Amino acid sequence: MARQERATRTRQTILVAAAEVFDEVGYEAATISEILKRSGVTKGALYFHYASKKELAQEVLGEQLGALPELPPRDLSLQRAVDEALLLSYLLKEREPIVRGSVRLTVEQGSSKDGLDRRVPMQAWTDHSLSLFEQAKADGELLPHTDLATIATMFVGAFTGVQVLSSIMTRHEDMLERVAELYRHLMAAIAVPGVLVRLDFSPGRAAKVYEEAMKLRKEKEAASPA
Amino acid sequence: MARQERATRTRQTILVAAAEVFDEVGYEAATISEILKRSGVTKGALYFHYASKKELAQEVLGEQLGALPELPPRDLSLQRAVDEALLLSYLLKEREPIVRGSVRLTVEQGSSKDGLDRRVPMQAWTDHSLSLFEQAKADGELLPHTDLATIATMFVGAFTGVQVLSSIMTRHEDMLERVAELYRHLMAAIAVPGVLVRLDFSPGRAAKVYEEAMKLRKEKEAASPA
Repeated sequence: MARQERATRTRQTILVAAAEVFDEVGYEAATISEILKRSGVTKGALYFHYASKKELAQEVLGEQLGALPELPPRDLSLQRAVDEALLLSYLLKEREPIVRGSVRLTVEQGSSKDGLDRRVPMQAWTDHSLSLFEQAKADGELLPHTDLATIATMFVGAFTGVQVLSSIMTRHEDMLERVAELYRHLMAAIAVPGVLVRLDFSPGRAAKVYEEAMKLRKEKEAASPA
Repeated sequence: MARQERATRTRQTILVAAAEVFDEVGYEAATISEILKRSGVTKGALYFHYASKKELAQEVLGEQLGALPELPPRDLSLQRAVDEALLLSYLLKEREPIVRGSVRLTVEQGSSKDGLDRRVPMQAWTDHSLSLFEQAKADGELLPHTDLATIATMFVGAFTGVQVLSSIMTRHEDMLERVAELYRHLMAAIAVPGVLVRLDFSPGRAAKVYEEAMKLRKEKEAASPA
């Protein structure tokens, strides 16, 4: 294994361990020593890659959008929006560490002194939603007069809250159903009728979407130069 | 002032001080000594009313729905739902202590050991929304086949997330606009057309709704036996 690749793997191992700890106990209570124990790397290796707990947390926050695996193309951009929401819900429910840790760091208000910039993942999701809706608009999927910036922010906000509520009430057990219902209702307010009837909101899609994404990832890895 | 009334006021003073501290630093970092300083009551008085920080926090959580002032009757239950959401947003933005402290306690995941039951306020809002929607259904305001339990949970979740996002991105500055847009879109998916066109989603309603509620409260206080 080349030195570069080894370094990348070590960084990822540390990041995943940190995300797990942030998910379990939050930023304030997380300790470097617990992250070391979890990752199995040496203190020297950790501090070679990350200067502080804050730097680790900010990187976990920065990885949130990137932790969503890529999906194969869809005929409809609005179906892609539904599928990405189901996939993110699936990862939360199935305890994918970066997604879980990062979402907890985002939502917890923290102390004003912790200095974490929680706007980073929220802005990334909003920009991502906006570009999806721009495509949907270009393809005639949206009702006229739909304000793209407004709905991008609205979807991100509403998803966040459904996640918080599902976590509090059922520890994410009902997350897929809740997100499907949210999207069913919000899409009714923005999609043209001919598109709306073609959208599939079944919570059961989530596992299939996840498999599709994993298959695509493997294909890409196999196609990339060794 | 009767002894009973004095005790009630002291409890309220302590609770407001505690809510302020919870809002500012969260549950974990909040201390009884800061709450004492803020409230100006003696340690003896505080412990006479509340056995622990946890008991204080649980009571702040329990007061969340009750912190929403009563509104005068509305012709449409769905307008009442909009107005209550705007009023709650207004109180969050204007830093009403019980609402702010309680919302922060609800949303922060906390440590698994803190023992706070964050389901209490969420269940209270869900029940409250459900009864509003039951009235709306009885009055023919809702589209057929609308599932009341589903939309009650959905509105509570989506509102929560819009609040979290507005807090992160703008410290609640854009809260009224975001909530108005959320309700405009969600109502489009559940209200019959004749009701939908009569609903007023202007963010500017919030201050007027607040004044109405304060007027009603004063009238009720004046009418109650001295």
